[in-house]
Amino acid sequence: MCKYSIGIDFGTLSGRALLVDIENGREVAAAVKEYPHGVMDEFLPDGETRLEQDWALQHPQDYLDVLKEIIPEVLRKSSVDPVDIIGFGIDFTSCTLMPVDQHGTPLCFLEKYRSQPHAYAKLWKHHAAQDEANRLNRIAYERGEEFLKRYGGKISSEWLVPKVWQALNEAPEIYKNACKFIEAGDWLVWQLTGEEKRNSCMAGYKALWHKQKGYPSREFFKALDPRMENLVEEKLSSKIYPIGSKAGELTAEAAALTGLKQGTAVAVANVDAHVAVPAVGITEAGKMLMIMGTSNCHMVLGREERYVPGICGVVEDGMIPGYLGYEAGQSCVGDHFDWFVKNCVPFEYQQEAETRGKNLHSLLTEKAAKLAPGSSGLIALDWWNGNRSVLVDGDLTGLLIGCTLRTKPEDIYRALIESTAYGTRMIIDTFENSGISIHEIYAAGGIAEKNELLMQIYADITNREIRISASAHTSALGSAMFGAVAAGSSKGGYDSITEAARNMAKIKDKVYKPIPENVKVYSQLYKEYRQLHDYFGRGANNVMKRLKEIRKANE
Amino acid sequence: MCKYSIGIDFGTLSGRALLVDIENGREVAAAVKEYPHGVMDEFLPDGETRLEQDWALQHPQDYLDVLKEIIPEVLRKSSVDPVDIIGFGIDFTSCTLMPVDQHGTPLCFLEKYRSQPHAYAKLWKHHAAQDEANRLNRIAYERGEEFLKRYGGKISSEWLVPKVWQALNEAPEIYKNACKFIEAGDWLVWQLTGEEKRNSCMAGYKALWHKQKGYPSREFFKALDPRMENLVEEKLSSKIYPIGSKAGELTAEAAALTGLKQGTAVAVANVDAHVAVPAVGITEAGKMLMIMGTSNCHMVLGREERYVPGICGVVEDGMIPGYLGYEAGQSCVGDHFDWFVKNCVPFEYQQEAETRGKNLHSLLTEKAAKLAPGSSGLIALDWWNGNRSVLVDGDLTGLLIGCTLRTKPEDIYRALIESTAYGTRMIIDTFENSGISIHEIYAAGGIAEKNELLMQIYADITNREIRISASAHTSALGSAMFGAVAAGSSKGGYDSITEAARNMAKIKDKVYKPIPENVKVYSQLYKEYRQLHDYFGRGANNVMKRLKEIRKANE
Repeated sequence: MCKYSIGIDFGTLSGRALLVDIENGREVAAAVKEYPHGVMDEFLPDGETRLEQDWALQHPQDYLDVLKEIIPEVLRKSSVDPVDIIGFGIDFTSCTLMPVDQHGTPLCFLEKYRSQPHAYAKLWKHHAAQDEANRLNRIAYERGEEFLKRYGGKISSEWLVPKVWQALNEAPEIYKNACKFIEAGDWLVWQLTGEEKRNSCMAGYKALWHKQKGYPSREFFKALDPRMENLVEEKLSSKIYPIGSKAGELTAEAAALTGLKQGTAVAVANVDAHVAVPAVGITEAGKMLMIMGTSNCHMVLGREERYVPGICGVVEDGMIPGYLGYEAGQSCVGDHFDWFVKNCVPFEYQQEAETRGKNLHSLLTEKAAKLAPGSSGLIALDWWNGNRSVLVDGDLTGLLIGCTLRTKPEDIYRALIESTAYGTRMIIDTFENSGISIHEIYAAGGIAEKNELLMQIYADITNREIRISASAHTSALGSAMFGAVAAGSSKGGYDSITEAARNMAKIKDKVYKPIPENVKVYSQLYKEYRQLHDYFGRGANNVMKRLKEIRKANE
Repeated sequence: MCKYSIGIDFGTLSGRALLVDIENGREVAAAVKEYPHGVMDEFLPDGETRLEQDWALQHPQDYLDVLKEIIPEVLRKSSVDPVDIIGFGIDFTSCTLMPVDQHGTPLCFLEKYRSQPHAYAKLWKHHAAQDEANRLNRIAYERGEEFLKRYGGKISSEWLVPKVWQALNEAPEIYKNACKFIEAGDWLVWQLTGEEKRNSCMAGYKALWHKQKGYPSREFFKALDPRMENLVEEKLSSKIYPIGSKAGELTAEAAALTGLKQGTAVAVANVDAHVAVPAVGITEAGKMLMIMGTSNCHMVLGREERYVPGICGVVEDGMIPGYLGYEAGQSCVGDHFDWFVKNCVPFEYQQEAETRGKNLHSLLTEKAAKLAPGSSGLIALDWWNGNRSVLVDGDLTGLLIGCTLRTKPEDIYRALIESTAYGTRMIIDTFENSGISIHEIYAAGGIAEKNELLMQIYADITNREIRISASAHTSALGSAMFGAVAAGSSKGGYDSITEAARNMAKIKDKVYKPIPENVKVYSQLYKEYRQLHDYFGRGANNVMKRLKEIRKANE
C-alpha cells in the first residue's frame, strides 16, 4: 500500500505543492498558485496607502489561499486517497515576518490596521530596515558580541531584529499590540496544527538564535533600544524545535481547508533554500549544495562549529539535525546575465536570435561555448550587486578587465559566467581554509537545470564534480521528505531525514566532471581573480566605494 | 592683387587639395581624390601576390594621380589664375617609406619588381616589422643609446629603421638595388622640384635624426646588422632641411602635370598631423594641439629639449622652426567609441535611433549629455588598444570599474569618453612634470568638430580652455601656409610661419571653458583614474599582460 507526503514551497511570488510517493520519491502531482496580492511594494491593498522605497510586503491571506487551492488540486490530479497522505511539510522564504495577536491572527486582518503597512508580512527582501541594521551592527561590534562571528561579521537588514525594530520605531502601536512577531512559515504551521512551534532553521539563520547560547542577551537588546529589552520573552519564543521535528497534526479546521485528513502529521517549517539540501541527497559533511538563480545560495554541512569569515550564518540543526549547517551566498548571478542581455547586446545578435528562433541567453551561450577557456583575455569581478560572501560588502561594484578592440559580446558574457564561478570557488576556498572541506557540489535551480556551459565552467573552475537535482521542485520535494519524517516509520514514513533522503532524494544521471586542461587554465585565471578580489575587496584600493560616494553626491 | 597658395594633404585613403587666399587664409576651393589602389593589405596590384598579416602598402602612382587631378580641379573651381598661385606645400602620412632607384623612380614602377611587396611604399600603419622593432629596442637599450630617451624609451615598428630592416631581411635584393629609401612626402617634393630635400619633421620623428647629433651611430646600425653599418650614407641622406624651408621650384614637367606655373615655390614636406600646428595659430610654447580621430595625437612646442617619459618624440624644428616639437599620443579614441557602438549597444537603442533618424553615436551622446559628472559611478582605463603615451605599452588592455545592475549603455559610453580625457590629462601632467607647461588646448579632427559633449568633458577634465580649428581641412591649410612661406614676402607670401599663422590660421569663435563644478568632481575622479593607471600600468599588477599571454596560449 503506497503512502504519500505533500510538500509546499512558499516562494516569493507563488506557492507550489508536490505530492510524492514516500517509498521512492516519485512525484505524483504538482500544482502552483501565484499569490493574489503578489509582492506589495507600491501600495497596500486599500489602494491608497503608498509604500516608501525599499519596502516589500505580502498579505498572509494569500498563503491560506494557496493551501486552500493547490492541495485539493494535487489530490484531484493524483487521485490519491487523503487517507494515504501521512505527512505534510512546508518551506518558506525567510525572514518573512508578521505581527499577530494572541490568537495568532495577523494584525493586518484586523479592520483597524488594514491601512498600516507595519501590520502586514514583511517579505524577506524588504530592505527598509537598513538604518536599524546599520545601528545594530555598530552596537554589536562595539559591544564585542560574539554572535557576529557566526554571521560572517554582519547582520542583514533582511533579518528579524532589524525588521522588528523598524516596526517599533515607525509604528510603536503595532509593536505594542503585537502579541508576537513570527516567521510566516512558523505562523502557517501554527494555523495548520494549532501549535506555535518555531523551527531552528529560521531562528538560527535569521533571528540570531543559537542552540546552546540562545538569543543575544537582554543587555544587547536594551542597548539597541530600552523598549526591546525583553523582546524575546514578550514577542518571540525561546522554544525552538529542530528541523525534522513533528510540529503536530492537522486540526479539523485545517483539514476542512485543505481536503486532507485531520491528524495528518505536520513537520516544523523550513527555509526554502535549506530544505533542498536533503532533497538532493546531502545528509553528511563534505558536500555543498548551490541553489542557483538570480543569486547563488551555498549550503554545506559540518560536524563542528567554526567561524568562517564572510558566510551568511552557521546554525546547528539548521539543515540536517545533528549537523552544523553553513550558508554562504553570491548576490548577483542570474541578475548579472540578465543585466548584460538587457544592456549590452547589439542589434545584430538580436536579429540573429530572432531569425534562428532562440532567445538571447541561448544565442550568447552557444557563442560563448565555442570559446576556449582563457581565450577571451577577460576577467570580471562579479560584484554588480555587491559581494555577499566572503567580503560581506554591498558597496563593492563590478569590474571588467582585459578589453581590446577585438572583444566580442560573447567574450564578455562568458567572462561574467566565469566570474560567478570564481566567486563560488572563493567561497569554497574560504570554507576549506576554515576547516570545512568540500569534496562535491550539487546544484539546483533554473540555471543549474538549463545551462550546461555554465555548469561545466563551474566544474572546471571549482575543480569538483557537480551533480544536478533531478526534481523541478527541489524545495517542495524536501518539504515532502520532512513531512514523511514527521509521520515516522510507524505510520509508513521515516524516522530520520537521512533515511528519507536515501529513498526519496533525486539526482540526474549526468555528472559535470572537471576537464583537466580547462582546470589548468582556470587555475591560472583564478589566481588573477583572487589578486583583483583582494586588492579591490579588502581595502588596498577602495575606489569602488569612493566612486559610489561620488555618484551619490552627484546624482 | 590677391595671391594664393595650394596645400595638399596626403592622408591614408585620399589626397585633398586646398587653394587659399594668402592674405587672410580664406579657403577658395578644395578637392579630394581617393587613391585608386587604396591601402593594399591583401594582394599586390598583380592580383596574385598575397600579402601577409600586418602588411599595409600603397602605390606611389596614386600620389601622382592625385596631383594630376585635384590641382586642376581647384584651379577650375576657383577660377584663380595660376600666375597668382605663388606657393605650394604638401603634407603626408609618415613614416610611409619606399625604395627608389638613382633617378628617384620607385622600384615598384620597374617591371621586374612589380610582384615584389618590398618594392612598394610601406604605409605608416604597416606593422609587419614588429620583430625588427623589438630587436632594435633591445639592442638600443642594451647599448644605452641616448636617443631612446627622445622617443619615450621605445621605437615603433611603424618607423623608418624597422621598415628598412624588414626589407633587408626579407628581400635583400631590394635593399641592395634601392639607391635610396625615402619618405613618400620627400619623394613627392623631389618629383615636383627635381631636388631631394628631406624634411626635419619626418627625419626627426620617424628616422631617429637629431639636429645636433644626427642619426644614431654607425656602430649602432652595425650592431643591428653588419649590412646596415652604412645605412645613412648609402640609403638615406644626412642633409635634412628644417620645415619652413623652400625645397625648390616646380619643374617644367611638374608644371605640366599640375597646371601650375613652372617656378612656383615648393616647401619641404611635412607630416600630416604636425603641419596642423600653425594652421590653428600655434607658434609658441604653452599651447597643445590635439588631432582627434580614431586615435589622438598631441603636439606641444617647447623652448628647450627635455626628456619627457612616454612621449612619441621630441624634435627640433619638428613643428615650428626654432622650437622643440613634442609629440605624444593615445592609441584608441574614436576606435573606442566605435567598438562600443558595434558591440555593446542594445536593440532598443538601435530602434530608438532609427525611429528618431539619428545614428547611434549621436543618440548615445544625447543620453550621455544628460548625466552629471560622476553620476555613472564608472571609471574606465582607455587601453582597449594598448597605451601609447605615457606608458608606451601595447600589451595593456581596457578596464571598466564601478558596474552595477543600474548601469546603462550611456553610462558606459560616457565613461569611455571620460577615460580618453583622463588619458589626455595624464599626458599633460607628464609634460608639466617635465617642465613643459601647457596653458591652452587646441583641437582639430572629426571628433573635435562634431562632438560638443566630448569637448566639454575634455575641457572639464583637463581644466583648460579648448579652441577648435575653423578649417575642415586643417592639415591642407597648414601645408598651404608653408607654401606661402616657401614663396617668401618678396613674392607676396610670408617670411616666416609665425607671420603666416598670424594672418592665415583659423579658430572657431566657440571656446570650451572648464565649468568649475564639473572640474571639482572630475579632479576627484581623475585621482582614482591615476591610481588605477599606475597600479595596472606601472608593474604593481601585470594582470593585463598575463591575461594576454594566457589568451595567446589558448586561442
